[in-house]
Amino acid sequence: MTGTHAMQDVIAIVGGTGPQGSGLAFRFARAGYRVALGSRSLERAEAKAAGLRERGAAHITAATNAEACARASLVVMAIPYDGHDQLVQELSPHLSGKIVVTCVNPLTFDERGPIGLLPGDSSAAETAAALLPESAVVGAFHHLSAVALNDPDADLSDQTVMVAADDEAAADHVAELAGAVTGARGVCIGPLRLNRHLEPLTAALISVNRRYKTHSGIALAGVPDGPPVRR
Amino acid sequence: MTGTHAMQDVIAIVGGTGPQGSGLAFRFARAGYRVALGSRSLERAEAKAAGLRERGAAHITAATNAEACARASLVVMAIPYDGHDQLVQELSPHLSGKIVVTCVNPLTFDERGPIGLLPGDSSAAETAAALLPESAVVGAFHHLSAVALNDPDADLSDQTVMVAADDEAAADHVAELAGAVTGARGVCIGPLRLNRHLEPLTAALISVNRRYKTHSGIALAGVPDGPPVRR
Repeated sequence: MTGTHAMQDVIAIVGGTGPQGSGLAFRFARAGYRVALGSRSLERAEAKAAGLRERGAAHITAATNAEACARASLVVMAIPYDGHDQLVQELSPHLSGKIVVTCVNPLTFDERGPIGLLPGDSSAAETAAALLPESAVVGAFHHLSAVALNDPDADLSDQTVMVAADDEAAADHVAELAGAVTGARGVCIGPLRLNRHLEPLTAALISVNRRYKTHSGIALAGVPDGPPVRR
Repeated sequence: MTGTHAMQDVIAIVGGTGPQGSGLAFRFARAGYRVALGSRSLERAEAKAAGLRERGAAHITAATNAEACARASLVVMAIPYDGHDQLVQELSPHLSGKIVVTCVNPLTFDERGPIGLLPGDSSAAETAAALLPESAVVGAFHHLSAVALNDPDADLSDQTVMVAADDEAAADHVAELAGAVTGARGVCIGPLRLNRHLEPLTAALISVNRRYKTHSGIALAGVPDGPPVRR
């Protein structure tokens, strides 16, 4: 059984001291959710959590990654792709029966800029799902600029969080939760394997950011508010 | 030398009788461009061109694909991925020194819906570029709904045409040209290889369309108007 998460429940952010993780922690906490900000190092987690509380995000506590997962009913993996599989495996005892949201972007950089790293038929999300058969793995939050997430004045309501998952209830739940981050409900795009196409798209956004000196994001046009019409 | 195209020059649409090709032909012609609508069959091209002229798009003439390419200084490949390489090869004598815009989406469909077809390190655009060393190949127009393109009342100005190319002048030119289709300048995202991530993204849009009963599109948020700040 997966998919339950109420506002009084805890959201864990694994990799919460990184820019994407701390930005999501900030936004969730500011919206009223209780957040356990995880890191490999409890000291680094405590320093980051204290900094975010000072910036007005109450309800953030610090923990090791494992302890954050143990406390939470929903876990956000905001970690680098380097070492991803091993860390997911390590944390798996704490993730059973929970929603695991991944915003991991497997990218590489060379003299021509950023580019997707993985073969066309795989994704970090699908790898995580294979390692976590007892969890509901959901892909989301790949395309939100970390700079914007951490900027209390940045309005993200013109952006769309695309949500990919095989568990429809978990997808709906994360689409709702996206509203706490951006101000707008996310869009459930379909099965988790579509995350193959969400993850590397971040390379295009980073390239745009470099070229236009901005922090870009993605929106879907033409999608009605609310959940999908049918399943 | 590539990259010159003035309004009095001809835009060829290879595959102009298909929904994407005819929609692009309609929009270009309505904006005042001269369009050569190409098809393998001259008869089918003539029927489609006549239909579009009746709908208010003057300046559309019909041709075989090869003849359309020969007349044009800019060619849009709006063709299925099935048979793509062979058709590009066939047309290559007519494409030298020209801008070749590709909106080809290599997708496949199974019981779980649409999904990208190619390995992660390839794209139809890169294949076309390898077959056309004397052309400036540009990826663009992948994510515009054919239904919306063909609907004279559909406002596409909330959508962003992402443009990928190694030839910066050609990319700029196509980004400008996108304004004739959508009403908004396109965004030059970077090198042609980023088309690896644009092409399969269409699978996510088709999946959204099925689930939400809509015709979705993509917009980039946070990108300033005009060309990139630097190269």
